[in-house]
Amino acid sequence: MITGKNYIGNLLSSTGKVTFKTFNPQENKENDVVFSEASSAEIEMAVALASEVFKEFRHVSGVKKSEFLNQIANEIESMGDELIKMYCLESGLPEGRAIGERGRTIFQLRTFANLVKEGSWVEATIDTADPNRQPIPKVDIRKMLIPIGPVVVFGASNFPLAYSTAGGDTASAFAAGCPVIVKSHPMHAGTGELVASAIINAAEKTGMPNGVFSNLNSSGIEVGVALVKHPQVKAVGFTGSIGGGRALYNMASQRPEPIPVFAEMGSVNPVIILPEAAKNKGKDWAKIYAGSITLSSGQFCTNPGLILGIKSGDLTNFIEKLSEEIIKIEPSCMLHPNIIGAYETKKAVMQKQKGLQTKASFSDEIAPNFGRQAITTVEGATFLENTALHQEVFGPFSMVVQCENAQQLEEIIANLEGQLTGTVLAENEELKNYNNVINALQNRVGRIIFNGVPTGVEVCAAMVHGGPYPASTDSRFTAVGINSIKRWVRPFSFQSWPNDLLPDELQHENPLKISRIIDGKSTAEPLSK
Amino acid sequence: MITGKNYIGNLLSSTGKVTFKTFNPQENKENDVVFSEASSAEIEMAVALASEVFKEFRHVSGVKKSEFLNQIANEIESMGDELIKMYCLESGLPEGRAIGERGRTIFQLRTFANLVKEGSWVEATIDTADPNRQPIPKVDIRKMLIPIGPVVVFGASNFPLAYSTAGGDTASAFAAGCPVIVKSHPMHAGTGELVASAIINAAEKTGMPNGVFSNLNSSGIEVGVALVKHPQVKAVGFTGSIGGGRALYNMASQRPEPIPVFAEMGSVNPVIILPEAAKNKGKDWAKIYAGSITLSSGQFCTNPGLILGIKSGDLTNFIEKLSEEIIKIEPSCMLHPNIIGAYETKKAVMQKQKGLQTKASFSDEIAPNFGRQAITTVEGATFLENTALHQEVFGPFSMVVQCENAQQLEEIIANLEGQLTGTVLAENEELKNYNNVINALQNRVGRIIFNGVPTGVEVCAAMVHGGPYPASTDSRFTAVGINSIKRWVRPFSFQSWPNDLLPDELQHENPLKISRIIDGKSTAEPLSK
Repeated sequence: MITGKNYIGNLLSSTGKVTFKTFNPQENKENDVVFSEASSAEIEMAVALASEVFKEFRHVSGVKKSEFLNQIANEIESMGDELIKMYCLESGLPEGRAIGERGRTIFQLRTFANLVKEGSWVEATIDTADPNRQPIPKVDIRKMLIPIGPVVVFGASNFPLAYSTAGGDTASAFAAGCPVIVKSHPMHAGTGELVASAIINAAEKTGMPNGVFSNLNSSGIEVGVALVKHPQVKAVGFTGSIGGGRALYNMASQRPEPIPVFAEMGSVNPVIILPEAAKNKGKDWAKIYAGSITLSSGQFCTNPGLILGIKSGDLTNFIEKLSEEIIKIEPSCMLHPNIIGAYETKKAVMQKQKGLQTKASFSDEIAPNFGRQAITTVEGATFLENTALHQEVFGPFSMVVQCENAQQLEEIIANLEGQLTGTVLAENEELKNYNNVINALQNRVGRIIFNGVPTGVEVCAAMVHGGPYPASTDSRFTAVGINSIKRWVRPFSFQSWPNDLLPDELQHENPLKISRIIDGKSTAEPLSK
Repeated sequence: MITGKNYIGNLLSSTGKVTFKTFNPQENKENDVVFSEASSAEIEMAVALASEVFKEFRHVSGVKKSEFLNQIANEIESMGDELIKMYCLESGLPEGRAIGERGRTIFQLRTFANLVKEGSWVEATIDTADPNRQPIPKVDIRKMLIPIGPVVVFGASNFPLAYSTAGGDTASAFAAGCPVIVKSHPMHAGTGELVASAIINAAEKTGMPNGVFSNLNSSGIEVGVALVKHPQVKAVGFTGSIGGGRALYNMASQRPEPIPVFAEMGSVNPVIILPEAAKNKGKDWAKIYAGSITLSSGQFCTNPGLILGIKSGDLTNFIEKLSEEIIKIEPSCMLHPNIIGAYETKKAVMQKQKGLQTKASFSDEIAPNFGRQAITTVEGATFLENTALHQEVFGPFSMVVQCENAQQLEEIIANLEGQLTGTVLAENEELKNYNNVINALQNRVGRIIFNGVPTGVEVCAAMVHGGPYPASTDSRFTAVGINSIKRWVRPFSFQSWPNDLLPDELQHENPLKISRIIDGKSTAEPLSK
């Protein structure tokens, strides 16, 4: 049962006056439930609770936190069809995608549960004392990672589950020991409330303090702004547009006490197709990329929006084949009228740029809110001159840049803004001849892919989902994988602290049996002194 | 031989028109050498070189980088007395301090040399492929830390060696693989040039590319501003005042491409003296703290500027004893007329605050530029009300706050700004009764110390030198210890990348024999597939 209310800790509340509804893009009509935007008083209460509860939650053991995270996963699973139906109603995405994304969300929660249950992630480091050291004795110093404080999470429109209410940001923040306040995405407020109720149920069942989680509805920017500016909020996670992420970053860095914002933002995810690959496998890649560009109507932050090659008959053939293949694909529904509106506007702006040629554009009759895919092409020199051509068109759109030679290709790559991913399509042998191009690419992205597609972000320890600005606001962190927990923790040292008052992670006896660095050596043994 | 010129890579250059001299505070007169402030053209050239050379330097092996770092240490050592004399001439600090700080600087360089020679610091992580995984095959993903780009380092006035030209910021940035441009501190430009020449010599002898290091003189803020705003600069390290650090942070976060600034700034380093400690060991602590407060004329960022206790006869006795002991200590020379000027001004502003009582103030005749130590005291309620009393007075000054009870003590701690350190003086048994106080303290600092003094920052892996704002601009990093390298690196993923084109750290064979995480397990073995 969806109430349309906010969760202020475990209290369902709707004292505000602003209301809104979500939208079903498949049926092109509003959904029924009326949502109540969080009022100033509700925002204040959620933050006060989070701040107060942090004193307790930050000391909760890894085992207890893992129970909480696993129980969230259980609750989401046990919601079954109700959640899947709401997801589809609010996003226009197909059931298969909803089920897949739910699986990913549950996997993320369980991965963090395992991480904190095992416990070594705190990077416990002990440098033992040496009273005989000259000229002055060496003191005992012990360090571990501790949580930073209440975290505000802004969910993404395009991932109502995996990057939203109980997505990677929330899971990693809970794992770190940080209370979370979600600014629920207005496009899937119902999905958000269902997932929020799963978190609240899990918190109650596993004995987490009330206020460890709140879920605030919003239709505009006011709730988010109030949260980011609140003195008791200590960090922000965001997935969305460059404009939105940068605005939050600016606010956070202009506070009297600046706080870290990890915003994962836009990217055109350049793909380089080298001559031999275009020649030998151009047709195959064209087919595969037609699929990647239109997957989920192109609504992925890793969507390949830019393909770069060196002018040749093979590249021309690749472009023709890509155009031909993409037209064969049935358009699919986009998330919301606002999203398709922005897509059509940005595509039109792009298509008006001097020198840009549209090679394919789906033109048959389609249902409302469905996205028409397009392939465009432009000369390397034209692309270099006009940075408007470098911008992301969020949707099933891609541009092939035809470079004069390898040098121009390198120059173009070096002048791109930061990107989440870069892909190279090549025969093994030719790769070695493009060292400068590959190096330039590496300098602009967070992940490089060989002979594959950038869509599909594996949830694993070795994944980097982030990259140089504006792919993210801080390339030193990742939004996906266990290391995403590092966004919400800080190192902390205890000097000469009494053993029995140290956290378990740092006590002589190593009661948690975690891996630690003692005097430079990695070991799970107790301290032998 | 000091030239007064800038190092633009290995070129000595002085095309600018602004000149300045350093000052000898002991003799109260200017030193002889005329320094030339870096011109806009020189700044531009230094950054262009660093940016170009980054393409090469980021691929330099750990072994080669370790040779470079060790050679810097060798060159500094071999300068012998020339460096020590210049240090003393420009800082007014005694020879013993200069020699100690040189030892610390060399130790830091050699520590980073060892770290990168061993190589495991890159956190190599491999998740192997699983072509049979359902519903979709799993790809091979490999991750490691890579350098972020050219780093600008602002040296500290109070550490002409260990936190300046070849200090921790520079050593960690080189270790990461980042070219460094030092904005030399105007108060010790001569010491800076000597150390810069050591770095340049080491770079040439170990075959590092020209431009991996530049040293720019400056008398005002212009050079620093130009560097932080330069699009090719990718990160900033700073040690100094809150005003200076915040200004750089603001500039960096307002750039079109924001960059990380790690600024280690001011701190009053609260010390809590609990009742039993005041009763049983108050006299001893008073003597020890008189020494800590006046060490190097109080010119440490970890100087104990705030002592908090609960009102009692024992606390009164502690204050009396501290006042008595501190007056016995001979004042020492401060770094520069500007530093002593700021000290006297801030001390006077503090002493005018309502309710503040000066308990001790050195009043005998002293030499110019020597700092007169002072101990003041104030009631807890007064301190809580007036945040002017919370500010740092950089120099041999401390304030004892007399709290009504443990609750007020906790409230005061919770309302402090972020701090580098917090210290607790206590008998083991009483510590348990002050859980709330200790928790509040932990939430405001980067390091807590039991029965010791905050001055003295051990260089070791478990050290955190940083803390919540304004102790630093980002509490998730430390300025001291091997983990300070994390400020200058970002994680990077290779997906399905050909083995022979991967960096050594990620190749199947593990040619560097480093410790890696393969499919979740730590191992130094090759990949068995």
